[in-house]
Amino acid sequence: MPKIFIEQQNKMFEYVPNKNLLQLLLENEVFVDNPCNGKGSCGKCKIRLLEGNLPDLSETERKLLKKEEMNAGIRLSCLVVPQEDIVIEILQKERKHEILTTGYMPDFDFNPAIHKEIFEIKKPTLENQISLEDSICNTFGIEKCDWKLLQQHEMIYGKVTGVFNGEDLIGIEAGDTKKNIYGVAIDIGTTTVVTALIDMNTGNELGTASMINPQKKFGMDVLTRISYVLEHPKDAKEELKHAIVNAINEMIEDMCNQSKIDRKNIYEIAIAANCTMMHFLLGVDATDIGKSPYAPVFVKSKNIRANDIGLKAHVGARLYCLPSVSSYIGADIVAGAYVCELHRASKNILFIDIGTNGEIVLSNHGKLLSCSCAAGPALEGMNISSGMRAAEGAIEDVKITENGIEMKVIGNEEPIGICGSGILAAVKELVRIAVIKKDGAFIKKEKLEETDYRYDMIQLDGRKREFVLKRSPEKLLITQADVRQVQLAKGAILSGFYALLKRANIDMHKLDKVMIAGQFGSHLSADSLVGTGILPEEIKDKLVYVGNSSKTGAYMALMSIDAKQQIEELAHQMDYMELGASEGYERLFAQCLLFTNR
Amino acid sequence: MPKIFIEQQNKMFEYVPNKNLLQLLLENEVFVDNPCNGKGSCGKCKIRLLEGNLPDLSETERKLLKKEEMNAGIRLSCLVVPQEDIVIEILQKERKHEILTTGYMPDFDFNPAIHKEIFEIKKPTLENQISLEDSICNTFGIEKCDWKLLQQHEMIYGKVTGVFNGEDLIGIEAGDTKKNIYGVAIDIGTTTVVTALIDMNTGNELGTASMINPQKKFGMDVLTRISYVLEHPKDAKEELKHAIVNAINEMIEDMCNQSKIDRKNIYEIAIAANCTMMHFLLGVDATDIGKSPYAPVFVKSKNIRANDIGLKAHVGARLYCLPSVSSYIGADIVAGAYVCELHRASKNILFIDIGTNGEIVLSNHGKLLSCSCAAGPALEGMNISSGMRAAEGAIEDVKITENGIEMKVIGNEEPIGICGSGILAAVKELVRIAVIKKDGAFIKKEKLEETDYRYDMIQLDGRKREFVLKRSPEKLLITQADVRQVQLAKGAILSGFYALLKRANIDMHKLDKVMIAGQFGSHLSADSLVGTGILPEEIKDKLVYVGNSSKTGAYMALMSIDAKQQIEELAHQMDYMELGASEGYERLFAQCLLFTNR
Repeated sequence: MPKIFIEQQNKMFEYVPNKNLLQLLLENEVFVDNPCNGKGSCGKCKIRLLEGNLPDLSETERKLLKKEEMNAGIRLSCLVVPQEDIVIEILQKERKHEILTTGYMPDFDFNPAIHKEIFEIKKPTLENQISLEDSICNTFGIEKCDWKLLQQHEMIYGKVTGVFNGEDLIGIEAGDTKKNIYGVAIDIGTTTVVTALIDMNTGNELGTASMINPQKKFGMDVLTRISYVLEHPKDAKEELKHAIVNAINEMIEDMCNQSKIDRKNIYEIAIAANCTMMHFLLGVDATDIGKSPYAPVFVKSKNIRANDIGLKAHVGARLYCLPSVSSYIGADIVAGAYVCELHRASKNILFIDIGTNGEIVLSNHGKLLSCSCAAGPALEGMNISSGMRAAEGAIEDVKITENGIEMKVIGNEEPIGICGSGILAAVKELVRIAVIKKDGAFIKKEKLEETDYRYDMIQLDGRKREFVLKRSPEKLLITQADVRQVQLAKGAILSGFYALLKRANIDMHKLDKVMIAGQFGSHLSADSLVGTGILPEEIKDKLVYVGNSSKTGAYMALMSIDAKQQIEELAHQMDYMELGASEGYERLFAQCLLFTNR
Repeated sequence: MPKIFIEQQNKMFEYVPNKNLLQLLLENEVFVDNPCNGKGSCGKCKIRLLEGNLPDLSETERKLLKKEEMNAGIRLSCLVVPQEDIVIEILQKERKHEILTTGYMPDFDFNPAIHKEIFEIKKPTLENQISLEDSICNTFGIEKCDWKLLQQHEMIYGKVTGVFNGEDLIGIEAGDTKKNIYGVAIDIGTTTVVTALIDMNTGNELGTASMINPQKKFGMDVLTRISYVLEHPKDAKEELKHAIVNAINEMIEDMCNQSKIDRKNIYEIAIAANCTMMHFLLGVDATDIGKSPYAPVFVKSKNIRANDIGLKAHVGARLYCLPSVSSYIGADIVAGAYVCELHRASKNILFIDIGTNGEIVLSNHGKLLSCSCAAGPALEGMNISSGMRAAEGAIEDVKITENGIEMKVIGNEEPIGICGSGILAAVKELVRIAVIKKDGAFIKKEKLEETDYRYDMIQLDGRKREFVLKRSPEKLLITQADVRQVQLAKGAILSGFYALLKRANIDMHKLDKVMIAGQFGSHLSADSLVGTGILPEEIKDKLVYVGNSSKTGAYMALMSIDAKQQIEELAHQMDYMELGASEGYERLFAQCLLFTNR
């Protein structure tokens, strides 16, 4: 079989020559960014051929690659099917991502469903040959034992510790083990997964771990992953489940090793995630989430045996999945609304989680109404010509003045791309300095004086205008298409915002607080959000950043059986408004696309 | 690797030369009878070497084999470790066993836990994006769905059939599938497994299948299988479970193929078995059943997902395990007692299941008391010098008169051994014609006249006396040791019988009925049972044979949710008396060992 050697990773694998290079790389755990999921449209999955031959350049590659790239041997991996031994270089580095693991949390009383109690089990005798199950039932005052618990046990007598989930016995341990009782709180995002190991006796977070969601190899966003399921009906559900379960197992192992804790003493894993991620986690068909009328298979909370989906912890450990409201208002948003106490608000509070989807929840004195807007991946730095996720080397802020362009780069490195907050800041600046007009179009370069400081910042690629952030060593541009991406995000979120207020009949000035949640939201400054008009100027002073409220909600569910119940009630009571089905939405959306130069 | 070729099966396999020949044969699914479980004591695992070499005869083989056997190349497979290519002949044939699948059953009303109902599930719309789970809950009036049911489903709408286990929804099928609803009733014996495929709409038995319990390769009886678990703590539980689950799956497949039924329409499997077999089935540790104070891990009924132990049927199909009373009064006896309506008896009824263990249940006007006696395998034709199980070629009845020995052979073949009913009949005859004395010893040959018809029937092997049933082509003998085995069985059962009556304070003459259950019991004639004194003369006319009441009990549980409940109550109410712990038992046992020549 021919081989592929990846130069900088010193990694080699053999392959059967019938798949494209991107597929081969992903299958062999070599990550290559591919926002379009290998459809040959984004032009991102670049590699450089160092040795060996690849088939000739295709039409599509010629269109998507620059001349100098083609000369340098750069190819789009999804568009070439290798046939022989090759040596290649991956052009994107797996970089350290900034993942947010903390955030706001209200005070609450610890009262976890999981708890331990000490008992004494008597030994059977010839006169009383009582079965272990009957002994356990008598000792713990229960009617019957979970048979899987019996399957684990040899006879056990004397002092024992019973592990309970609410009133259900889920484990029996010899001796007094009350001091060892741990749980895990998890936020599964489409892009990142954040886990925290919790000492359930104290509520302390002993450690955290996070990683890029490994399901990325099946598609960057929810819809491409759902497409993957449609295209691979036989295996995809299992593959997606396996990928996320493995990732969680790895992170739990890391945290346990670091805290020197036995994973057998983890008795519950509480997970918040969007509705699609939750379906994938349980191996449930999610394809209907991707098509009208967007009905999911389930939204209710799930309390199941963690082991049943392959999670490794105590054999009887529980998996608690927080409830969703609808396909596009997932448990992550329910968690956030709960953490922000929207259900108890005595005012008007708006909650926004900004990501590929922007989810908005309005609390009108505790009455909850939500909607979801397809913001697109621009605010996450994706589908942007020089875009990247928030990682080392990403431009995260931009200021443009007569003196030039000032940029803030994550990790203080040489910039290699621009992340969501950076693109937003840049667009805000371009609007402010009137390089971008109200309708989102670049101004014509010829309308500027050559002495204007903006003149040299604009370049023409054929008839397309581009803004040059940086000329060398690699050019970093903001293209007209990039601006359109941001504009779509702005239109989607702002129109959702207005539609929700209108439906609830609340005037914008009556909003008391706007809470910004989520991984990406926390990187988007009030200046940028308001400056680009994603949110109206009026609420600028009312913004509160709450961080990863999804993980916090999972933590609260873990640490309080009351929180679980309240979260379920909250999900049940939250109304959902389908924007596409609301009257006059198309016109509102068109209006919201416009930039306002203040 | 060297090879072993089995002549008459035309089967060949390779092996790593470090195990004994018996192990190698069993591992490769070549069955060799080995009542002592390869311990080198029973001398039963004979094979004949046809080509190649084996290590020299060991001391033990010289002791256990006859001279002519050694000359003919016969070896004991558990005592030789082959090193090279050999061709061998297996000396026991896998014979068609007579397995009892039917029996007595009282009238009862069908009211199975499993049932189907037809519903209509509405399609979601953009205005009402209801989740599938919520639709199902609304439609079926339930609070939540089993998540594994959701895992199976894509969206399903319109007319559907709900499959229920009691009130729990276990399946949803498109359209009206009410006419396809099947179940399986099973009796797992230590030696044989009997299954029946049931149409749950009509209660009709569509087919049956039975086979030797494949766990036999881990030991012939309960205790040797438990020893196997002790010797292989890592894998044995899984191996034993796997063996029986596979066997059941095979039989279900056979029955389904024959009846042209899809196994996906099997929704419940009801199983009766002794307590150890039930532990093995669920992969539960059974080792404590083998040692004082003989406390099992569980006796309660189990109602679990069949799939969870690997049984293949509908994905949501249930496994119902009938309850036991104690380690040695298993669900098979509970089933039998229920089928014989002992709990409702308005008289005094005794129930006996005769096998390796003899279980006795006394119903004193519905009050139940049970005991178990270690009868040993003699009545199943095992541990007997010429013994075999009830299969073609087995002598099943014997009459001895002045005119000679008359024998009845299963399948009307040339006799090759003697099964339980045969050995019992023979001993009864030997007692009757006074070849065996009251204490069980053979009379001295020299005390007989040479003209006595019995004179030539007795031969001496050194100082040991033997009764010759048949001289050629192979000698079939009844040895003093064989008689002792029967005597032990008699002592055990009869003493249990008396002890139970004594504890209940019931005079033997007040017994109204004695019900004989079980595979082996049904082959033992009243003449033999009473003639050998296993049961007293007084009850001879009160005997009723009820057949495989264990399987019948499983069938009734399958077809009636009330039966399940009543069976559980019966098990809970049945008292158990440990004979070993009862006063004066040793003396009673000694008395019961004596034969009575009437």
